[in-house]
Amino acid sequence: MPDKLTDLIEELALANRILAHEGVLDAFGHVSVRHPADPGRYLLSRSRSPLLIEPDDILEYTLDSEPVRPPKVQLYAERVIHGCIFQARPDVMAVCHHHAPAVMPFAIAGKPIVPVFHLGAAGGADMPFWDQHREFGDTNLLVVKQEEGHSLARALGQHPAVLMNRHGATVVGGGLRELVSRSIFMCQNADYQLRALALGTPEPLHPGEVKLASTLNALPNVVNRTWEYWSMRLEAAGGMPPRRSSAKAARRPVPKPSRVTPRERRKGRRR
Amino acid sequence: MPDKLTDLIEELALANRILAHEGVLDAFGHVSVRHPADPGRYLLSRSRSPLLIEPDDILEYTLDSEPVRPPKVQLYAERVIHGCIFQARPDVMAVCHHHAPAVMPFAIAGKPIVPVFHLGAAGGADMPFWDQHREFGDTNLLVVKQEEGHSLARALGQHPAVLMNRHGATVVGGGLRELVSRSIFMCQNADYQLRALALGTPEPLHPGEVKLASTLNALPNVVNRTWEYWSMRLEAAGGMPPRRSSAKAARRPVPKPSRVTPRERRKGRRR
Amino acid sequence: MPDKLTDLIEELALANRILAHEGVLDAFGHVSVRHPADPGRYLLSRSRSPLLIEPDDILEYTLDSEPVRPPKVQLYAERVIHGCIFQARPDVMAVCHHHAPAVMPFAIAGKPIVPVFHLGAAGGADMPFWDQHREFGDTNLLVVKQEEGHSLARALGQHPAVLMNRHGATVVGGGLRELVSRSIFMCQNADYQLRALALGTPEPLHPGEVKLASTLNALPNVVNRTWEYWSMRLEAAGGMPPRRSSAKAARRPVPKPSRVTPRERRKGRRR
Amino acid sequence: MPDKLTDLIEELALANRILAHEGVLDAFGHVSVRHPADPGRYLLSRSRSPLLIEPDDILEYTLDSEPVRPPKVQLYAERVIHGCIFQARPDVMAVCHHHAPAVMPFAIAGKPIVPVFHLGAAGGADMPFWDQHREFGDTNLLVVKQEEGHSLARALGQHPAVLMNRHGATVVGGGLRELVSRSIFMCQNADYQLRALALGTPEPLHPGEVKLASTLNALPNVVNRTWEYWSMRLEAAGGMPPRRSSAKAARRPVPKPSRVTPRERRKGRRR
Repeated sequence: MPDKLTDLIEELALANRILAHEGVLDAFGHVSVRHPADPGRYLLSRSRSPLLIEPDDILEYTLDSEPVRPPKVQLYAERVIHGCIFQARPDVMAVCHHHAPAVMPFAIAGKPIVPVFHLGAAGGADMPFWDQHREFGDTNLLVVKQEEGHSLARALGQHPAVLMNRHGATVVGGGLRELVSRSIFMCQNADYQLRALALGTPEPLHPGEVKLASTLNALPNVVNRTWEYWSMRLEAAGGMPPRRSSAKAARRPVPKPSRVTPRERRKGRRR
Repeated sequence: MPDKLTDLIEELALANRILAHEGVLDAFGHVSVRHPADPGRYLLSRSRSPLLIEPDDILEYTLDSEPVRPPKVQLYAERVIHGCIFQARPDVMAVCHHHAPAVMPFAIAGKPIVPVFHLGAAGGADMPFWDQHREFGDTNLLVVKQEEGHSLARALGQHPAVLMNRHGATVVGGGLRELVSRSIFMCQNADYQLRALALGTPEPLHPGEVKLASTLNALPNVVNRTWEYWSMRLEAAGGMPPRRSSAKAARRPVPKPSRVTPRERRKGRRR
Repeated sequence: MPDKLTDLIEELALANRILAHEGVLDAFGHVSVRHPADPGRYLLSRSRSPLLIEPDDILEYTLDSEPVRPPKVQLYAERVIHGCIFQARPDVMAVCHHHAPAVMPFAIAGKPIVPVFHLGAAGGADMPFWDQHREFGDTNLLVVKQEEGHSLARALGQHPAVLMNRHGATVVGGGLRELVSRSIFMCQNADYQLRALALGTPEPLHPGEVKLASTLNALPNVVNRTWEYWSMRLEAAGGMPPRRSSAKAARRPVPKPSRVTPRERRKGRRR
Repeated sequence: MPDKLTDLIEELALANRILAHEGVLDAFGHVSVRHPADPGRYLLSRSRSPLLIEPDDILEYTLDSEPVRPPKVQLYAERVIHGCIFQARPDVMAVCHHHAPAVMPFAIAGKPIVPVFHLGAAGGADMPFWDQHREFGDTNLLVVKQEEGHSLARALGQHPAVLMNRHGATVVGGGLRELVSRSIFMCQNADYQLRALALGTPEPLHPGEVKLASTLNALPNVVNRTWEYWSMRLEAAGGMPPRRSSAKAARRPVPKPSRVTPRERRKGRRR
């Protein structure tokens, strides 16, 4: 179990950096994952830009978004997004909140992102739109109160993603790798949809196509291919996260190569 | 003959990486070349993102897209695209399937890419459009069945490229270097055509111009110039593929410089 | 006090490079800061592209934009922009003039940039538009005369930024870090606003939202996060400025680590 | 005089690389300069992508575009563009032909690029449009015959640049540095003009403003600033050209630092 937790924490740091390197996250945005041993807790970095996150930045939270251990660092103001969704959606294992440039025109114009190519089906047939102002009036648009988080989770419902009025989007996944793929493909879809408007109003995929194509990024040869690709691009840019320096890790001075199965992470670690 | 095969396999890995580095391919897309000694076979990588492909990843397939040797690795699900086109088009020596961002608005809006500048003539005067749904109903939009591959090859006909509804495009060439040039110029053409719409509806080249200009990228001073340029850009980014580590290569421990004529490839190999 | 001045000069060089690296400045544009000990003076580089500025390039000016010491180098022609604004706005501690690609369509079309997402509120609810030609007739559009600078400062009024007809924009801040954030977020806002037009005419934030959201980049966890992120991106690109080589610095041969608090700047200095 | 020629040849290689690195040139396009000692000759590279050009690639041509010495390498097919313009325009000292993405929408839609910001005035108040097809019927659109070159030169007239139908643009300058600045600012202007269309039809600068602003890039503090900036960007990317390896250079084994005045070129040479 400790190994599994360490692995997941390292993968969470890597997921943050991949999403930043691929243009989904920038100075802002955050990614969480449910605790592998305790579904009533989740893992999320201290307040830091995703491209810079290290395993040692990852903290443990209750689903009320309270840190399990008294924090010595600044926390994300919007962590209730994660806690409230993990409460409402037992099937969700990972959450990403972002302001990707590709989705912003839709979040600003209040128009739906619809699946216009096969990989874009990962975002679902119809994407809900959450307007914080309708329910909470004037705010600074950050989602910081429990009731704001719960409202967002209700708007998300059983969908894979939700647009947030003049703010951004929140995406969920059954695991970190599905979440990363979905977030990236949803941005590609939004970009293609917007540019296709110059040629006419694009028709979305047929409902049956959305259903069949939405599971593409769970195919083994797709999961392996995309994860290796995004990891290698990050590594080529010198952006791989360091390993975790926890007490548990210290007790194992020599890494066991056999347990580090994904080739791309092993390479990253040994640089 | 073995040298010729080794050279072609190394050039295929390089072509994959050039097309990925120039923005035609990303995590997806694949490039094949017909076997130099056996027109009934073709060469294609195992399932891997094109930017990362090494000569040792290249496998040999029959035109039914069956691997000649039992594979120990994952294969591209869509390899029938290559086999079916090599069957239908004896003149075709290389095939590229891609989802380049530049062509996606056209594949999504169902509008033709037409040649709007001299180098764009490489894509042909009129580009066919293949709608998988019309013939096969709801699918996940991947081209995985023989009948899907044959249908796509029929739609391609004698054209240099075909658009695929809400999916991407497939491009063919009389050789790897022609294929690479055509794929890149077709993306440039699509980008210019789309952006020109803000100024008015662009007129395509005159039919006689298309005929004369479509052979530009076969001119010696153009082939040499573009291949050197794209290779050097890839090399500057640290992306050149390694050499092949086959048994045949092992038997020749000292490379003979005299047979490695193109200056750009020699440089890449010696890094 | 000397330490404070050295720190500020080094931070000014860093601010120039961050804004250039993030696409706000290019060959042109300049950033100034008010003198920490004398509100009647300001600090600004000699005429040089912002990405290359070093602490030793920074000169001291009176609010009439005269160099305090006889200069041996070329000066920015448009330094009156800074002097006139520092005269008119005692609350302003830092000024940036730029021609960022993101704002140019608005400066050219004469249309207002309005806040369309929470971070864009940093540019204010309504942005004034200054037309140099209306007051001064035909010029080369540079702001080089005192009366031109005063006119621009009047147009700016109490706003955080002003658009300049067919020229660019000028942004002010209560400090260098606020100025950097505001300049970057204003460019993001302009980009999103322009692209959202393809989907419809975007509605701006509600006035109450603008008021609440406009202070977001002053929140400690936002200031720290963005400054670390932009600094690290610059450092990863090898672009950190050298330290100052002043006489005072020479007298302190061993830097005292304790006084260099921000982690990102210390890292940059020790490369 | 020999030193002056060597300097100019090295500056020509550098100008090619700067224009390629700043996105004006790609695999194609070429830059020439009139011979400093003989106005009846000009200097131009052998057929090679501009980013890769070295001083040793530079050849000498008559104004009929014949190589002065029998060439052992491939020549640019379109060199008549340079010879014909140098014949028609004694004031022109440097010529650039390119297909920059920024100007292609205008070359394709047949719409004029007009100066929409101060630096864009370098392209002139109104830019002529040359349609090769109107005079020569169906061609491959390359400018390869003397009569095609003369026709293009007539269309250019006394203007600083000419658009070429569905092909690209040709720009001239009173020197290499003016040419480089004008080419880059003209691309920026085209980009801003196109994007401003989403907000309305942009009004160009007033005629008097064009006249005054068109000389901005000849101001000493502008020339120095832009040349240093573009050279440093190229150098940071590892793209500086090598020095010339001519017989004359060989006779001077130790470079004299005193004659290499521009700081940015000296740095590049000593890497």
